[in-house]
Amino acid sequence: MSTSNGKIITNGMISAVVALAVLLTSALPSTAQDTDPLPSWNDSQAKKTIVQFVTRVTNKGGPDYVAPEQRIATFDNDGTLWCERPIVQVIYLRQKLDRMSEQTPSQCIELPFLATFDDTIDSLKTKGVLAFLKLFATTHAGMSQREFTAEVEEFFSKTKHPNFDVSIGRVVYQPMVELLEYLRANGFKTYICSGGGIDFMRVVSPKLYGIPPQQVIGSSVRKELQEVEGVWVLTRTGDLNSVNDKNEKAVNIGLHIGQRPLFAMGNVRSGGDIGMLTYSQGRSGRSLQLLLNHDDEEREFAYSEKNGESLQAAKANGWSVVSMKNDWKSIFAFGLPSRVDEKSSLPGE
Amino acid sequence: MSTSNGKIITNGMISAVVALAVLLTSALPSTAQDTDPLPSWNDSQAKKTIVQFVTRVTNKGGPDYVAPEQRIATFDNDGTLWCERPIVQVIYLRQKLDRMSEQTPSQCIELPFLATFDDTIDSLKTKGVLAFLKLFATTHAGMSQREFTAEVEEFFSKTKHPNFDVSIGRVVYQPMVELLEYLRANGFKTYICSGGGIDFMRVVSPKLYGIPPQQVIGSSVRKELQEVEGVWVLTRTGDLNSVNDKNEKAVNIGLHIGQRPLFAMGNVRSGGDIGMLTYSQGRSGRSLQLLLNHDDEEREFAYSEKNGESLQAAKANGWSVVSMKNDWKSIFAFGLPSRVDEKSSLPGE
Repeated sequence: MSTSNGKIITNGMISAVVALAVLLTSALPSTAQDTDPLPSWNDSQAKKTIVQFVTRVTNKGGPDYVAPEQRIATFDNDGTLWCERPIVQVIYLRQKLDRMSEQTPSQCIELPFLATFDDTIDSLKTKGVLAFLKLFATTHAGMSQREFTAEVEEFFSKTKHPNFDVSIGRVVYQPMVELLEYLRANGFKTYICSGGGIDFMRVVSPKLYGIPPQQVIGSSVRKELQEVEGVWVLTRTGDLNSVNDKNEKAVNIGLHIGQRPLFAMGNVRSGGDIGMLTYSQGRSGRSLQLLLNHDDEEREFAYSEKNGESLQAAKANGWSVVSMKNDWKSIFAFGLPSRVDEKSSLPGE
Repeated sequence: MSTSNGKIITNGMISAVVALAVLLTSALPSTAQDTDPLPSWNDSQAKKTIVQFVTRVTNKGGPDYVAPEQRIATFDNDGTLWCERPIVQVIYLRQKLDRMSEQTPSQCIELPFLATFDDTIDSLKTKGVLAFLKLFATTHAGMSQREFTAEVEEFFSKTKHPNFDVSIGRVVYQPMVELLEYLRANGFKTYICSGGGIDFMRVVSPKLYGIPPQQVIGSSVRKELQEVEGVWVLTRTGDLNSVNDKNEKAVNIGLHIGQRPLFAMGNVRSGGDIGMLTYSQGRSGRSLQLLLNHDDEEREFAYSEKNGESLQAAKANGWSVVSMKNDWKSIFAFGLPSRVDEKSSLPGE
């Protein structure tokens, strides 16, 4: 290269620019690679399975590549995204029933199957999801969408968790929040598909999980469009529209999303997620199904399923089982829970 | 500047680079401003109303600003996004019935209310949406989601429009395709909310409108998760799940989206979109409702509503009426339709 003083760009300048370019191009990808997107997960098999799967399906040109518009991930909520002992919506319902019992009988609507409120809550333990949802539907009949939302918002702002010394909305699993974010960063659309009430969950899903209302699928009541004081509002009837449990989860994924999930995760307790995971696995090409196992008595709870159905299905179908005890470095963002009451009498135990 | 031959960059080169930079920086913003996002719309009031509305709700810091997650736009399909004379899904059903009539009676499923196929199609004219959907449900009962999709895909690939000399999937309104794209470019999520079958529309909505399956709301049948040859599939039952017409459109928007549309558009014909537009207008703050009026006999069709209900509602509530004749510069991407058959005997007239 010429040594003329007239040169505007010197060899030294060129070297510096090249060095800077090398620095930038090498620094950027390695930063992205070095930052662990799942810091609350141990480096065990579960995390490796997830990361390998996401890497494969996002590897353009690879044999397992899946276009972004087909990257659908569905998650159960109770016991998968947040703690289900007791089920948060049951705490909400108990408060609602308590308020109703303070009203004069004439203001109370007729409840379907209770003598006392405690009887009702007790009966739910044996009667299950359908009984709970029927009671929930009946006790909220006639409310507008706006009134219902306001009541749920108030519940979340004022209520403490009965077992842990934190606000009720803080019992979300930090590893799952990271997983949702990791999937979204890789072009996935993340959905909730839960037996819980669709409207109940939608009030908090954007804030807790970054999941907008239209990506929440749940149990629902029939609604009507009615004119109330000059405004047309959706009001709740007392009739159930859908009980989003077991195979009905697959049916509602079909209705709301219209394609099979590429990624689906539920938890071990009632067999309620087997239908969703089975439906996901029926997808052509690669897909991933995960089951969360509550085996951490110290940091959360240890409980199993009466008939062992979910774990058997996982074994038979090759689904990955995530152990809270072994696969999660931490569980809650607030650290180890300080327990208030070990023996809760609410359903979900 | 030096005239040395050793110079790597000459003054002329620098001038050229500077000129190019000036050209680029001045050209880019003005290109964005100058490119009309709605070229198939005339510069009449309808277009002004739309552009002013979008500008207001996307103006950060302005009094009418709406966050992107609340920018929901819902559109009827038949007669709003594509031509409804005849209704495309009715053409599909007629072909299905013709195929079924060629089979031996034992292979035919029992149809609910017909003597001959033409009688059935004729009866739909008077019996309306519910009768059509019941017949559609019954004639597709037992099909898996995959089989149904394959049949609809084949229909779209092979069928010509009975009135215009084009393929059946080409009767989409070009001004509406532009409007959908314009709204999406401004952070809106665009949804279909139609009386048509949800699964039927989902087959073509990504390609025709850029609308993914999860953003299509429509009439639906009950489904079941069933094992067929070792794979668990969703199969259609013969029972209706939802007739997405009139007020039910609002109910299903509540179920699928969970918030009121900021922007809603339907068309004049059956009063079927009044519920959706009313629900959108009940939103707190600014919102926009539009009704498309089919008044262009030369370039499409001119038809009105028997009782004038939709236009009366538009007048009473301040909704904007879009005239195909006056507000649209062109209607179809393929230009003026070449008519095959002026008198179609299929419903939708």
